[in-house]
Amino acid sequence: VAAVITLTTDFGTRDPYVAEMKAVILRLNPAVRLVDVTHDVAPHDVIEGGLAVETIAAVCARGTIHVAVVDPGVGTGRRGLVVAAGGQLFVGPDNGIFTAILALPDRQIFELRAPAYRLSTVSDTFHGRDVFGPAAAHLSLGVAPTSFGPSVADPVRVGWAASRQVGGGVEGEVIRVDRFGNLITSIDANTVERLSRAGGPVTVRVAGRRMPLVRTYGDLAAGRAGALVGSHGRLEVAVREGSAAARLRAGRGATVRLSRSTRTSMSSGRRRS
Amino acid sequence: VAAVITLTTDFGTRDPYVAEMKAVILRLNPAVRLVDVTHDVAPHDVIEGGLAVETIAAVCARGTIHVAVVDPGVGTGRRGLVVAAGGQLFVGPDNGIFTAILALPDRQIFELRAPAYRLSTVSDTFHGRDVFGPAAAHLSLGVAPTSFGPSVADPVRVGWAASRQVGGGVEGEVIRVDRFGNLITSIDANTVERLSRAGGPVTVRVAGRRMPLVRTYGDLAAGRAGALVGSHGRLEVAVREGSAAARLRAGRGATVRLSRSTRTSMSSGRRRS
Amino acid sequence: VAAVITLTTDFGTRDPYVAEMKAVILRLNPAVRLVDVTHDVAPHDVIEGGLAVETIAAVCARGTIHVAVVDPGVGTGRRGLVVAAGGQLFVGPDNGIFTAILALPDRQIFELRAPAYRLSTVSDTFHGRDVFGPAAAHLSLGVAPTSFGPSVADPVRVGWAASRQVGGGVEGEVIRVDRFGNLITSIDANTVERLSRAGGPVTVRVAGRRMPLVRTYGDLAAGRAGALVGSHGRLEVAVREGSAAARLRAGRGATVRLSRSTRTSMSSGRRRS
Repeated sequence: VAAVITLTTDFGTRDPYVAEMKAVILRLNPAVRLVDVTHDVAPHDVIEGGLAVETIAAVCARGTIHVAVVDPGVGTGRRGLVVAAGGQLFVGPDNGIFTAILALPDRQIFELRAPAYRLSTVSDTFHGRDVFGPAAAHLSLGVAPTSFGPSVADPVRVGWAASRQVGGGVEGEVIRVDRFGNLITSIDANTVERLSRAGGPVTVRVAGRRMPLVRTYGDLAAGRAGALVGSHGRLEVAVREGSAAARLRAGRGATVRLSRSTRTSMSSGRRRS
Repeated sequence: VAAVITLTTDFGTRDPYVAEMKAVILRLNPAVRLVDVTHDVAPHDVIEGGLAVETIAAVCARGTIHVAVVDPGVGTGRRGLVVAAGGQLFVGPDNGIFTAILALPDRQIFELRAPAYRLSTVSDTFHGRDVFGPAAAHLSLGVAPTSFGPSVADPVRVGWAASRQVGGGVEGEVIRVDRFGNLITSIDANTVERLSRAGGPVTVRVAGRRMPLVRTYGDLAAGRAGALVGSHGRLEVAVREGSAAARLRAGRGATVRLSRSTRTSMSSGRRRS
Repeated sequence: VAAVITLTTDFGTRDPYVAEMKAVILRLNPAVRLVDVTHDVAPHDVIEGGLAVETIAAVCARGTIHVAVVDPGVGTGRRGLVVAAGGQLFVGPDNGIFTAILALPDRQIFELRAPAYRLSTVSDTFHGRDVFGPAAAHLSLGVAPTSFGPSVADPVRVGWAASRQVGGGVEGEVIRVDRFGNLITSIDANTVERLSRAGGPVTVRVAGRRMPLVRTYGDLAAGRAGALVGSHGRLEVAVREGSAAARLRAGRGATVRLSRSTRTSMSSGRRRS
């Protein structure tokens, strides 16, 4: 069965952990297609892992199965989950990594308990290989989520960065810094569009700097900072052919303010950025 | 033929070397499934490469083909091998990388000589692409190991870290540090179990510190060091949500002692870790 | 349709960008085989990306489709291209990344314009996912390159390092440093062979050091520097079981001179390297 299983972990790619998960999955379903989302989630960073899952789910076909293993509680009493939501399936620990997915109105949540769908020997330290991988493989073979265990009413959720109205503008924060040094923020495209439609140019402030809102990297002069709606539908802060993180000395958690600009603040902002 | 070929190399993933191997394999068998074990073996580190092969072979199905290329002697007279052992096949240079596999009682070893199963032009510097990849592809198509060349009686073996009885305890060493900073040791699960069964709590000493033997990471208080039997059946030293390598300033080659603890040494150990 | 699509980008593997491209491709053609060439091209480095494409194309079967996305101009007016050349297909931005491919005599070049072969919504910042990935998927399903848009007569080309005759020798430059610290140069195998055939030993000079021309790494004493024709048909400078880049303190752009050696200069060179 040529289903797609995506893999998001904090295992890195230097150790054979990811390959062990894949070997177990392919043993159960040799036809499945495997897509690595990332294995470089910061160790134990459930929120970073959850953001990656949210991103990949947005572009995958119905029926895709997502395995996410950022699992500091492995071997303790924490539950394992299969979540059905938005026509896709999600498998991983019950530690908040699926917080964004659990917000979908149609989600159904089940505990991973059935011994038939895990390895016959389960280690205390590697449920990616022994529990979550096999569960995903069985789902790809057509096993129903309801077969794995009882329904779960109280899954763990973690704080998810959002944006809020502040005066005439919006305030959010940097939630991720990508490889290019772009600062991805918690302010979504709809919020940016609503503010833009209200009239007048919009300006963005991060780490004490003001910068213009543009459409794409190419609208900036080389080395200039600006903000734009990125490919994941979030406000991003970028420097043309450079790193905004390095230039602005800003990282995850930095406050980002979006507001309608006055002529004065914009020109001053341009001089500084 | 949808066989699985796993790839273990020291090529890194920045250069196109791994992709060249894969392209050559897929040209010969477009249906084969490829699994990257790791390409970040330290350059020329045959022992680290061999450990990765041993780990992945333990979870793969019968019939899996493993290619391992850590090959400082490429282009010299060193032989290439195909090893059949434990129902799986192994392809790579004859430099000790298969030392653990060669210890399996049923192994059969053949030299890679037949020109039919390598590229028509073989470079002096890249046998992964020109010799080992093609050999694996031909094996996946059903060519018998005996077809590649003569039987080999004296394959190269390298020193493999083991553990030894010392007084009432066992002494081994750190053989690998994983991404999380866990110290994987040469002491295997059976040895740990035998000592544990003898009665009384067991304590572990690494880099001048004593720490308890626990079942899983979650049994440790946050930031605490402990030892446990890891997912590969070896004693591991870990710090809960931290790096044991950094905390204990210990790396590969560090001595690890496992012994039945006295009440005194344990409590002192706890205070220090 | 089980075509092979290779992927060369500067996206890194920490962010989910590569996986988004793959998910989109697999949505359109679930049977396609994906091969990662590299995602660690230095950000925005069109020449490094182009070298990787040239390397992988040399070993791939006819019909292979190569997607290359190093794209600082994304969202501006720069065109997207599909190039048919040497029996393979190439998809990416029109920014010089295909300079080497465009030198093939049979190349045909078309602009990526047809809305039918891109996502229904195209972002301004991620054409890998929205334009180039879908184009490759449609090509793998049998859509003809001519269907994508008008023929292009003036594709962008960038300066490509070459070698030139200097006195009785040849001068080129380092174009890439690989993971092992080998210095890959712009001097090709034919040039080396022509000079060697002229008689007398050949010597290579890089960063003020002279070193011998050898056949393979194993011909060097441990820790010694030498030059050889590498697996990609280019002169490489290597240190046996060491890094030439570190030892010689040389990197991309360093001048490399190849000349017939006198007895004196060789022995002096040997003493120094």
